[in-house]
Amino acid sequence: MKKPIGIFDSGVGGLTVYKAIRSAFPEEDLIYFGDTARVPYGPKSPNTIIEYSVQNARFLLQKGIKILVVACNTSSAVAIPELQRLTEIPIIGVITPGAEHAVAQTVNQRIGIIGTEGTIRSNAYVHAIHQILPQAKVFSQACPLFVPLVEEGWLQHPISKSIVREYLANQKEQQIDTLVLGCTHYPLLKEIIQQELGEQVRLVDSAEAITHYLKPLLAEKLDGKVGTDRFFVSDNEDKFAQLAVRILGNQINLLKRVRLFESWFED
Amino acid sequence: MKKPIGIFDSGVGGLTVYKAIRSAFPEEDLIYFGDTARVPYGPKSPNTIIEYSVQNARFLLQKGIKILVVACNTSSAVAIPELQRLTEIPIIGVITPGAEHAVAQTVNQRIGIIGTEGTIRSNAYVHAIHQILPQAKVFSQACPLFVPLVEEGWLQHPISKSIVREYLANQKEQQIDTLVLGCTHYPLLKEIIQQELGEQVRLVDSAEAITHYLKPLLAEKLDGKVGTDRFFVSDNEDKFAQLAVRILGNQINLLKRVRLFESWFED
Repeated sequence: MKKPIGIFDSGVGGLTVYKAIRSAFPEEDLIYFGDTARVPYGPKSPNTIIEYSVQNARFLLQKGIKILVVACNTSSAVAIPELQRLTEIPIIGVITPGAEHAVAQTVNQRIGIIGTEGTIRSNAYVHAIHQILPQAKVFSQACPLFVPLVEEGWLQHPISKSIVREYLANQKEQQIDTLVLGCTHYPLLKEIIQQELGEQVRLVDSAEAITHYLKPLLAEKLDGKVGTDRFFVSDNEDKFAQLAVRILGNQINLLKRVRLFESWFED
Repeated sequence: MKKPIGIFDSGVGGLTVYKAIRSAFPEEDLIYFGDTARVPYGPKSPNTIIEYSVQNARFLLQKGIKILVVACNTSSAVAIPELQRLTEIPIIGVITPGAEHAVAQTVNQRIGIIGTEGTIRSNAYVHAIHQILPQAKVFSQACPLFVPLVEEGWLQHPISKSIVREYLANQKEQQIDTLVLGCTHYPLLKEIIQQELGEQVRLVDSAEAITHYLKPLLAEKLDGKVGTDRFFVSDNEDKFAQLAVRILGNQINLLKRVRLFESWFED
């Protein structure tokens, strides 16, 4: 029997990662978990992001996955070491693939990173880039309004263009030639970001970078059958299904809502 | 011994309600709970909002409160009946006070409501207004970008003004004379909303309306001593403390983070 690949994200944005993996590995079985009941992770504290990530990973591990893909940049930036304590299977975050891809693309060694507050505050991309290219100049910018703009569906709206201009002003002035889209939602704003920065700036989408990482880990011969897809979310399954059509271009089947046992306690 | 009043909100915005209650009832003991680990509630499903609200209410009930104030408009719109099953003590949401205040203010009987997706989709304000003034024309508008704008601190930013203009265009055209600010965050955008609609439109802030509701329930004579304040949040206590200074104009003491026991399960 094939073992599935597990993918989790704070919500619907990780479907951009799911889509890239599905397209690169059509025979693999995939399980996706989106934590739509607690989205967004970006503004939350590292401890809370770690707690949520561990719960999500446990859920997928119970399904017998062979590889865990952390599609959420914020979780990838702060929770990977804790996740590695849970299991022996390989865990792939989006930070290292994104950083390596950016280094491979840059010519002038001036790289921009955009992401949530949590991702930017962690400096995870900056560290990952400097490990490969110590002399790189890295310019980071948190863009907390991008996720709500995408969720509002304002992908081409003049107001979104103004917000893109405002957030990217410093990076543009610093003449970056490569920009890492360090959040799964941001590829949906790719067009207006590219317009603002100009065609000469390369945009790095971690969803694309991650499939190269998976390839050597997926060397075993499969059965030649098309892989299955299962989707789990913690809330709003209807809204998730609608956004999924928009991101993937087709309907999703096998979508189920899961819930939490929870009660408050004081330390 | 005095019993405290309990107040909960999805995050920091409910401090506008706390502030109004503190100012109207200086001798009362208050306990505030902000669910900053799961904010925002607005885009989430009614079932999830009810679950979270019940957990928050249970936490405050364990503290021996005599009245529960639901500062969060989204919770007030969907969770009050479930909360009433938990306890015999009075539970006050912000919807009815806001609706009555709006009806008292309007002259042309054309009332606007703005709020989160959850609040607007529930139609709770529309129903509450029509119960008092059946012939009122009510114009509702969800404003999902207002909460992130406030949290980004763009209270006077030109982009915020453009977004206000976009969201309020229909209500302005409909010549409303009263607008209910149906989310605890929105009073922080009061100035630019007033500028956009003009001085003739009355803005109804539920934080102010709610103190009239509390008055008859707080008739007992107290001890003449200044009331105490306790604050609990589920995440980001430092950020909460910073925003609290901005909203309240003074530092808060006795702030504590609480956590959840949680694990995913399938139905």
